[in-house]
Formats: sequence, structure tokens, C-alpha cells
Amino acid sequence: MNETEKAPQIAILGTGLIGVAWAALFQHHGADVRVWDPVPDACAATVARMAAPLSQLAEVAPDAGPRGRLTLCETLAEAIIGADLIQENAPESISIKHALFADVEPLMAPHAVLASSTSALTWSDLGPGLKDPACLITAHPFNPPHLVPLVEIYGTDPARIARAEAIYRAADRVPVRLKKDATGHIANRLASALWREAVFMVQDGIADVEAIDAALVNGPGLRWSVLGAHMAYHLGGGTGGMAGYLDHLGPSQERRWADLGVPSLTQEVQAELVAGVTREAAGRGIADLEATRDKALIAALHARKDAPPV
Amino acid sequence: MNETEKAPQIAILGTGLIGVAWAALFQHHGADVRVWDPVPDACAATVARMAAPLSQLAEVAPDAGPRGRLTLCETLAEAIIGADLIQENAPESISIKHALFADVEPLMAPHAVLASSTSALTWSDLGPGLKDPACLITAHPFNPPHLVPLVEIYGTDPARIARAEAIYRAADRVPVRLKKDATGHIANRLASALWREAVFMVQDGIADVEAIDAALVNGPGLRWSVLGAHMAYHLGGGTGGMAGYLDHLGPSQERRWADLGVPSLTQEVQAELVAGVTREAAGRGIADLEATRDKALIAALHARKDAPPV
Repeated sequence: MNETEKAPQIAILGTGLIGVAWAALFQHHGADVRVWDPVPDACAATVARMAAPLSQLAEVAPDAGPRGRLTLCETLAEAIIGADLIQENAPESISIKHALFADVEPLMAPHAVLASSTSALTWSDLGPGLKDPACLITAHPFNPPHLVPLVEIYGTDPARIARAEAIYRAADRVPVRLKKDATGHIANRLASALWREAVFMVQDGIADVEAIDAALVNGPGLRWSVLGAHMAYHLGGGTGGMAGYLDHLGPSQERRWADLGVPSLTQEVQAELVAGVTREAAGRGIADLEATRDKALIAALHARKDAPPV
Repeated sequence: MNETEKAPQIAILGTGLIGVAWAALFQHHGADVRVWDPVPDACAATVARMAAPLSQLAEVAPDAGPRGRLTLCETLAEAIIGADLIQENAPESISIKHALFADVEPLMAPHAVLASSTSALTWSDLGPGLKDPACLITAHPFNPPHLVPLVEIYGTDPARIARAEAIYRAADRVPVRLKKDATGHIANRLASALWREAVFMVQDGIADVEAIDAALVNGPGLRWSVLGAHMAYHLGGGTGGMAGYLDHLGPSQERRWADLGVPSLTQEVQAELVAGVTREAAGRGIADLEATRDKALIAALHARKDAPPV
């Protein structure tokens, strides 16, 4: 933070995995964070649960400056009053979120932004929970939120979107705007589309689970960490770029789309998916796999400081 | 190379972008490389065109040991006779490849592997070009082949597949096996599935081209560089892993699949794709974009040496 600027005031509602990651991220980047959870014990455990993400953030962004203040709030009002951004991480239920919004809205400052971390729901699902839906944006992070920079944003008030984006950018995030709201936002639509074909290849016997994952991580996944999918076809078109690609290979791409599969999660397919990831995990438990993922993500984030993506 | 081992003898047929990258990769990793192209000038230009990939390989793998020998061959026979692996990079035409195979097969050593770099064709398309199709494998690299580690392999002779895999591994590649041949192998099926949804989101007005690319590169793309798609759902299932994920969220994933789009490359969509990548390129030409991609790939490859993917 610039010393002459007031630190952003952030309320974190809900201290599940996502809420804790947001709290650590904002605090590390100098914002003042007030955390609230309807379950008092959950809130009290937050400090201990923030230790691991804070330690990772110290590796990722060692020059972020002094941490902001952390306040564990006993009441919702204590968290909301005076907050610039309220990051909501309640369970993925329309009725739970609507009930929470009814309590939040009267406490919000006029300029404040209510940002929902919702993955499964849309702005159109959540807006009816508010008297003034313009104060709401969806702001979906990608797991783990303190390491993966993406925040997908949809809202109707350009001024609030711009203020929220500035706060996310100050916390080293990359906000990306949707033009209209959509189930799965952008990233989970892409992830679902890719996984559908990955499951189809398992079902159809083209390749094993672990071979598909190895192909992704050592092929397109690696390339998509530095180059977007559209831009990849621009480069695939040679000197003609995207226009050249579409002229020469557009029809074959449409034929390839028609050849993609539509799998079904039958008991047999589910059993093969479970068996496949079990082979791939090779005895490593979830916590071990997550630690490996995070270490690799941190190294990848360091790599892009000197050599940014296209 | 271990000094007591004989260097692999590699024939590279065709000196387009892919052939040149293969030649540089194998030579850098100590193999003896014989290059042949039906156009004599193309072969003569190969040394100059190998300079850039060789320089990048020196950054990626500085400890690879002494380079192998490079021989520019005037005849096909000079390249093939004595080769352990013949990497074919002819144009993507069944008739051209069949005609080439007819010349190659009589010159091959009994143990040799004919490996086709084909992207668009399958083993089943190419096998009929040979008296003994068992000597053929498809071995598809992912562009740029000297930087992206993936080689996707299909063939019918387990001994030849194993020998080819050993040669690719010695050149720091990650070979991945298909269980049956499929158009697009694994990686391009995944890339097509993802791009179909990316184009749909442009067509449907959900997000701009450059927003979708930014979401991918800063979200799922980054994560897929360290964690496979199947394994991501294993971790997304909490302590229950993939089985827990499928129990709780399998049905919602199937609904999400049904909600994905089927775009059409109309003139209007094509125009928007071209306009979008033009905005995203922000004045950078193809060569500049490729240089940025390669620099970022090299940094990402360094990052995974200390912190390998899951």
C-alpha cells in the first residue's frame, strides 16, 4: 500500500476454505480485513487456518509491504460497517445467500460492493436477494484463490465493478469481466468442456485417466499457462494469424468439434475415474497432492514475474 | 549420453517447423541426427534454422552434455540406413505419406521405428502405406516441440513403442500412450473441446476473446500446468476425493455439460475472433508473440525442475 492511501476495508463473510484464502490474500497485501462467520468457533479458528496461506503468500509476494489489520468479528455489523468490499463465501444455496444479503444490505455503506464468491450460482440467481441489486457483483476466484490470480466478475454497476477491480488488482489478482452472466462463469465452463472430453476418452477407451492428465500437464496445460486458447490458434495460423487459421483449418476444426464425445457418468465410468486417479496419486493423500500442487503453483508464479504470459 | 552407450541414430524426414525442432532437440540431447528433405535447398537451410531452437535448448537443458552429430543427407537412403528412429514430418496428406513410406520401408533396419509426427491423421490412416504396419507408430509432439515435453504415441508393436519411448525420454520428452488411435490424439481433442466452448462464449456474448484468454492463462491454464483435469476433481472432492466429488457433484457436472455450447464459425464469429486476437496482440506481430511465448515456456520449464507437477 502507498502510505498516503487508506488501506481498503474488506469484510470476509464465511470462513470456509475460500473465505480463509481471501482473508490471507487481502491481509498480506495490506488491506484491513474483518472476518465473520455465523459459527463462532469457525471464526476463532481462522487465525490458525490462515497461517499456511499467509506463509505461501510470503513466498509468492515477499515485497507486498506490511500486512493489514485482521479483526475477528462477533457480529455481522462489525464486519460490514465501513467496509469497501464485502466478499461473501456462504454455502452455494440461493436461500442461504438471500437470507444473508437481507441482513447485509442495510449495514452497507453507499459506495460498498457486495462481491459473491459463488461458483455454481449466477448474478441473476442472487440479485433478487437485494433491494438494490446494483450493489452486487459476482467475483469468482479459482481454487486455491490466494495462489491462482483469476477473479471473474459480473455486475451491472460499472463504477462498483471498477472499484472492486482496483481492490483485486492491489491484491495481485487478475480480474476478468463477463459481458453477461453465465453458469460456470468463464473458467469453469472451459474446465467442464475440457473434462467432458477427458471423461469421454476414458469411457471410449482412447486413453487411461493418468495418461490424459500427463498429456494435459505436459502439453496444452503447460502452453495455456502462458498463452490463451484463442491466441494459440492465432499463432497456429503462421503469418496469416487467426484469419489464416480460420481460412485454412476452420472447416476441419468444425469437423473435429463434431467428433468430440458426450460421455455419461455411469457406474462403470465412475469406477474407472476413481481407479485412474488412485493409480495417478500413487499412494499420495489429498493433503500431500495439494502441497505438491501449491509448491508447483508458487514456482510457476515466480517464473512469470520475469517472463510474463503472452 | 552415457559414454559407454552408443548415441541413438535419428533420421528426421522433412525440415518444416516441426522437423527442425525435432532435429535441434535430438542433437542437443546427444543423438546423432541425419536430416533429409525432398527439397535440397530446404535441407541446406536447416543449420541456420536450427540455431534459435538450439539456443533455447541450451537455456532449458544446459547440462545435456555434448551435442550429437548432425548430417545433412542428400539421399533418403543416407538418412534411413542405420537409423533407430525415423521421425517423419511430411505434409498432412495420406497419399504423400504413403508414397514416402514406400520409399522408407525397404531401407529400414529390422529394429527401426518409423514415427510419424502427424497431427491430423491417425495410425489407421497411415498403416496401409506399409507392408509391415507394426514398424509404424504415431508420435505427435505439441508445438513448439523442443519446448513442450509431450509426445503422444500409438502403435501396435509393444517392443517398438518401448524403444521409441526410451529415445524420447533420453531427449527429455514425456511420452504418453494412447490405447487406441483417435483423431486429434489426446491433446488436440482436449484443445478442440476447450476452444469450442471458448468460441461459443464469444458467439453468445458471454465474454470477449481477450477476457477468455486472460481467464484461461490466469486460472485453469495455470493450474493445468501443474495438475491434471481428472486430478483437479479428485482434489475438488475434499477428503472423499474423486469418489466424493462424483457422489456430490457428478449430477451437476452432467447438467453443466448439457449447458455447454455448440458454436458455428460464421463470418460474424470469425470476424470477432480476428478482432479479438488483434486487440489482445496489442500491436505485437506473430514473431514477437512467439518469442514471448517461448520465453515464458522456458521459465515455466525451469520452475518445474524444482517443483514438479502433481
